[in-house]
Amino acid sequence: MSNTKSRGYAAFDTSGVLSPWEFERRPVGDNDILIDIKYASICHSDIHTMLGDWGPQQYPQVPGHEIAGIVAAVGKNVTKFKVGDRAGVGCMVNSCMNCESCKHGEEQHCDNDATVWTYGNPEETSPTGITQGGYANNIVVREHFAVHIPEHISLDKAAPLLCAGITTYSPLMKAKVKAGDKIGVAGIGGLGQMAIKLAVAMGAEVYAFTSNATKVVEIMALGVKEVVVVDKLSKLKPYNKTLDYMISTIPVQFDIAAYSSVVKPYGYFTQVGMPVGAKMALNVSALSRTRVNFNASLIGGIAETQDVVNFCADNQIEPDTINITADQINDAWQKLINNQASHHRYVIDAASF
Amino acid sequence: MSNTKSRGYAAFDTSGVLSPWEFERRPVGDNDILIDIKYASICHSDIHTMLGDWGPQQYPQVPGHEIAGIVAAVGKNVTKFKVGDRAGVGCMVNSCMNCESCKHGEEQHCDNDATVWTYGNPEETSPTGITQGGYANNIVVREHFAVHIPEHISLDKAAPLLCAGITTYSPLMKAKVKAGDKIGVAGIGGLGQMAIKLAVAMGAEVYAFTSNATKVVEIMALGVKEVVVVDKLSKLKPYNKTLDYMISTIPVQFDIAAYSSVVKPYGYFTQVGMPVGAKMALNVSALSRTRVNFNASLIGGIAETQDVVNFCADNQIEPDTINITADQINDAWQKLINNQASHHRYVIDAASF
Repeated sequence: MSNTKSRGYAAFDTSGVLSPWEFERRPVGDNDILIDIKYASICHSDIHTMLGDWGPQQYPQVPGHEIAGIVAAVGKNVTKFKVGDRAGVGCMVNSCMNCESCKHGEEQHCDNDATVWTYGNPEETSPTGITQGGYANNIVVREHFAVHIPEHISLDKAAPLLCAGITTYSPLMKAKVKAGDKIGVAGIGGLGQMAIKLAVAMGAEVYAFTSNATKVVEIMALGVKEVVVVDKLSKLKPYNKTLDYMISTIPVQFDIAAYSSVVKPYGYFTQVGMPVGAKMALNVSALSRTRVNFNASLIGGIAETQDVVNFCADNQIEPDTINITADQINDAWQKLINNQASHHRYVIDAASF
Repeated sequence: MSNTKSRGYAAFDTSGVLSPWEFERRPVGDNDILIDIKYASICHSDIHTMLGDWGPQQYPQVPGHEIAGIVAAVGKNVTKFKVGDRAGVGCMVNSCMNCESCKHGEEQHCDNDATVWTYGNPEETSPTGITQGGYANNIVVREHFAVHIPEHISLDKAAPLLCAGITTYSPLMKAKVKAGDKIGVAGIGGLGQMAIKLAVAMGAEVYAFTSNATKVVEIMALGVKEVVVVDKLSKLKPYNKTLDYMISTIPVQFDIAAYSSVVKPYGYFTQVGMPVGAKMALNVSALSRTRVNFNASLIGGIAETQDVVNFCADNQIEPDTINITADQINDAWQKLINNQASHHRYVIDAASF
């Protein structure tokens, strides 16, 4: 079989500027499906990665790991999908599938370090030598790593669930959030809005913490109980030990112990989304006073990704989105880099590639 | 009633040198007991505090919060002790005793911020204006904050339990360590040896992690299954995801995520003992790969302190100690500062004050 011809937008260097690019993906293998991409949404990780913030990259590289489309071809062993199915792809496209983590639905934590990330990951079968992401008109992916998108959610609203949705859904599920719980969400961007909408749908009373006073009205509209503008850390004091659980999507350095203090003793505080450099200063003494458990969560497994897509479809949870065309990607990236974006997720119409 | 005359060793400045000092404590109040101190042991916290590492101090100040002696007088409301009882005092001497934390046996986390630390804490009733610690011939303390020392443990072996013992016992109990568990202990000084002895007595298989290859033989003698010399982080790799729980007493900056990686996913890693400055660099991205919960623990409550003293007496757990006289304190401090000390705890014979 011949390679799969694709066209999309790629970074050619660390400039953070993308340009149109025609490239090839591997042929559709026996266990693969080909997806005609309809929408791909923009995650801040795309930008960090292309800028080299998280390590040197091979270019040209097509970013994008929030992907929704229609199955256009299936390999001979494929049983999960048929041509015409609605399908989504998130942050990973392969793993060993034999280790304890993979067998327990945590392919992102493959014990054999064989998780293959959706873009920029060295891959023998790829004609470009690395995986190429979703800012493109199609993608070839091992069937296990695609999820079904139900008919009752539109593809552009489903795309952001594949990263922003699962990244916030997975820790909320592990925290066993239930009706009546008081849940904190810190950092209200693309991930934060999903955390809020999911927690609200789970019946929680949600407290949003933002450093940006101009966002209060739009955040209230997401269904939160209260918005706390943390322009200084003392604003956290009134909430000391009041929340059952807290999730932070804050993408920059912040005072982990101070934010943890709003969680009840022996509760949990989860960081998702990775700051540049990934190293944060943690005041261990102050953390000991909170008695809170701190952890960090990395997306979620494939079965759980299917769960969040189904959960959102069934509960009419739709991320707030702004649809754009390919020629608007660079402008959208600049807004995200300059922190001028709202909590809305930019969704690229793949017909424009 | 008149003030209580005391003599001990005090710091007079940030030099880290102690000198003999005669001072006064408050009279024995209705709820107080007077303890004739027999032994006080040296905790690295004493040194950090007197040096001003954790904030400016008032001098003269008598350090010491590992205290064992004999009750010499009791106030008229005292019911817990009678003259002649063996008693110990640890890191705190008062709290509000009415808040949720105090009522649930966590006086060290008093919700009204009314925990009074054993030395250097502003205190109205103290003639010197601050609490004065246990490097002295006696102490006056509210009865609730003293614990009974059973007859079947000697006072010099009991003294280190009041801080080193409870600091390690409390997190091990919260982690519900049980027979057969694989427990890691990182940093094998005064606290580390207690963590090892307690975990071994609980039936755990203990793995000791030290950066000091010269300590291997003495650490093996503590009953551990294995000593891992972590002269480089790659030495942790073979233990990836193997331990049920890990406690660190490492008093300096270290790679939290790398050490956490030896704990099984969704397990817990507890830091006790506070590094200078208390801020540690945490690689959040690396921590997310471990799926481990990180927390920090601060000593333990009074009931739990009584528990650890009883547990050690009943199980013949004795900290390894080196008995010294008052004139040897400065030399012992220098050894601790220069990292020349073994895991043994220095215990001061209070008859020498």
